[in-house]
Amino acid sequence: MNAVELLAEITDVGRDRTRGGYSRHLATAAGSDLRDWFAEQARRRGLDVETDRNGNVWAWWGAPGPDAVVTGSHLDSVPGGGAFDGPLGVASALAAVQDLAGRGFAPARPLAVVVFAEEEGGRFGVPCLGSRLLTGDLDADRARALRDADGVSLADALTARGDDPSTLGPDPERLARVGRFVELHVEQGRALDVPVGIGSAIVAHGRWRLRFTGRGDHAGTTALTDRRDPMIPAAATVLAARRAAARAGDTRATVGRLVPNPGGTNVIASSVDLWLDVRTPAGDPGPVVDDVLGAAREAAHAEGCTVALTVESLSPAVTFDDALAARLAAAVPGAPMLATAAGHDAGVLAAHVPAGMLHVRNPTGVSHAPDEHAEDGDVECGARALADVLEELAR
Amino acid sequence: MNAVELLAEITDVGRDRTRGGYSRHLATAAGSDLRDWFAEQARRRGLDVETDRNGNVWAWWGAPGPDAVVTGSHLDSVPGGGAFDGPLGVASALAAVQDLAGRGFAPARPLAVVVFAEEEGGRFGVPCLGSRLLTGDLDADRARALRDADGVSLADALTARGDDPSTLGPDPERLARVGRFVELHVEQGRALDVPVGIGSAIVAHGRWRLRFTGRGDHAGTTALTDRRDPMIPAAATVLAARRAAARAGDTRATVGRLVPNPGGTNVIASSVDLWLDVRTPAGDPGPVVDDVLGAAREAAHAEGCTVALTVESLSPAVTFDDALAARLAAAVPGAPMLATAAGHDAGVLAAHVPAGMLHVRNPTGVSHAPDEHAEDGDVECGARALADVLEELAR
Repeated sequence: MNAVELLAEITDVGRDRTRGGYSRHLATAAGSDLRDWFAEQARRRGLDVETDRNGNVWAWWGAPGPDAVVTGSHLDSVPGGGAFDGPLGVASALAAVQDLAGRGFAPARPLAVVVFAEEEGGRFGVPCLGSRLLTGDLDADRARALRDADGVSLADALTARGDDPSTLGPDPERLARVGRFVELHVEQGRALDVPVGIGSAIVAHGRWRLRFTGRGDHAGTTALTDRRDPMIPAAATVLAARRAAARAGDTRATVGRLVPNPGGTNVIASSVDLWLDVRTPAGDPGPVVDDVLGAAREAAHAEGCTVALTVESLSPAVTFDDALAARLAAAVPGAPMLATAAGHDAGVLAAHVPAGMLHVRNPTGVSHAPDEHAEDGDVECGARALADVLEELAR
Repeated sequence: MNAVELLAEITDVGRDRTRGGYSRHLATAAGSDLRDWFAEQARRRGLDVETDRNGNVWAWWGAPGPDAVVTGSHLDSVPGGGAFDGPLGVASALAAVQDLAGRGFAPARPLAVVVFAEEEGGRFGVPCLGSRLLTGDLDADRARALRDADGVSLADALTARGDDPSTLGPDPERLARVGRFVELHVEQGRALDVPVGIGSAIVAHGRWRLRFTGRGDHAGTTALTDRRDPMIPAAATVLAARRAAARAGDTRATVGRLVPNPGGTNVIASSVDLWLDVRTPAGDPGPVVDDVLGAAREAAHAEGCTVALTVESLSPAVTFDDALAARLAAAVPGAPMLATAAGHDAGVLAAHVPAGMLHVRNPTGVSHAPDEHAEDGDVECGARALADVLEELAR
């Protein structure tokens, strides 16, 4: 099966009938189905499958050992996401392994395909959960205490699916096996005019949660002047985020998630949670976040509300390993170098091992939405390029 | 049992651990538990219990018949609501029946306690669902097609709980039994400085849903200038609603519910639903809604988005029956007359039968929130006043 055919196999898993597209999250039926599907596909290709203490699944060609060439991505999605962000890298990795076996290639060092858990943070808010736990960049106690929108903790969600949350935590032994990591991913903008590009860098990005607290009350009987309505400063902050990003230049600030509590039509909210996503090539999103927070405080004060800021994740700028990038470029002639404003497990691993990325052309640039797309021909080019890269690195 | 003790019996039913307070909605376990509790309490007081075709529960003292004196309220809540809005009227009605029986009162005409279904519209959006279906003010097909936040239709939700959605619809026979309707309710502002007041009117109010549609995309990779982010006009509209209400004078406009779709942190929303609640003593909320919609359209256009308006409910101003109000005033000496900006089943019934209300003092004015409160002494005064009113009307 080629990568297109592999993707077609999971086309019905985790469809989101309300939002459109896919909602594939950690510790859900869809998440388990995808993990099982991957394990089965890997075994069919003769790979040895193991799930690590953080829910990442590894499939080994050869004994798991040091200096391994590892590729892979993730199978989870944002809520209502597309079919390619994550699964394309996993399907391409499986197809590349099959391609290499067909070429009669015998790797001189171990080769593995990995599926990282909950890369999008779609359910528990923190992205790259599996890779950050593996590397120790995310504290296991903090991870266990994360809650989803229904108030279910990560620990309880794992337990409910038969997984053991007590094993979460750094896995230096497994990390030490990785000699080089290459992630193939669908491009998330319109920057590629050829099928495949090579990742040069990931810009600094992070997620902040602002909680506005006011006073819950009746929407009909409370005079305007008596209100302490947290929706007012929250709305002002959505607009302030756009202004702050525009002022900073080449920066993106987004509020895509906003939850009033209790969220009734005839109820003045008692609190509003608002999530701010900021990405900036300047290297430090801090000044933009400070700008937004200043506006949020001012608007909250004017309404008799308060606002509290929590850093949910912060990913410094990543420059991928130059030497590895040069080898990728040699293996994929003509592929342009490309910086991205999207976060990836490869960015997490880059702080620990030489890591790199291949990007596959996205004709519309739409991403994190049902219309996300890559053409079949480009998908096949990507898988072939990945096979060439793995052959070059593992020879 | 007095009304305070009756309320204490349901203090654990439908608690909302996430939002605080109570979430008691139609076709949920809490909703069924409350209906069962009411039926049991009514039977203990010798009343005959029947559930009508719209899920409203009636408890009869005497044969159900014409010219009945009916009292009651509702047991459902807004999401994260208080303990009094609705249940106070039901508990007081049961206590009043017991009080009257203790007085040795024999009603000369039928007397009934009714619990109306889904008064708040907390799950399916349309308030006074049970009473509006009963009177025919809400079309049964429209009701069956209503959907909750998870996309479940009212028809499917009823079926799942073993109720038959095909019976929904006007019930002129049952409505014809009602001679007079009196609803006791906790006050929802700070207007009472004595324990009990008499309802004079309900101001015009309604609910409108604005759907902003843009283009879902990746929060990191989409340049600000390429965005069509519906959160931007939605936020502008929250602020515009406040300004429009202030301009109109003595008017309330509130956005307490706002749902971005898909609602991921790292995702530009593809659409945003925003619910606007407007109440105005001027009699017609239309000009305020037009003002808000104008601002919404302008903001949507500037962002390359569209906006569509749906009227979810519209309740014209209600003036309660003068003659009935005079009899209530005679039965509760010293009680002031009080107009309210909150909607009630009594307001729906007022268009069909003489209807009136008693309001019980709310010391803080907080309503539709966990802190909603009435003092025990005021609750007992209210139940006694209701007994006096029923005795006067049914003698």
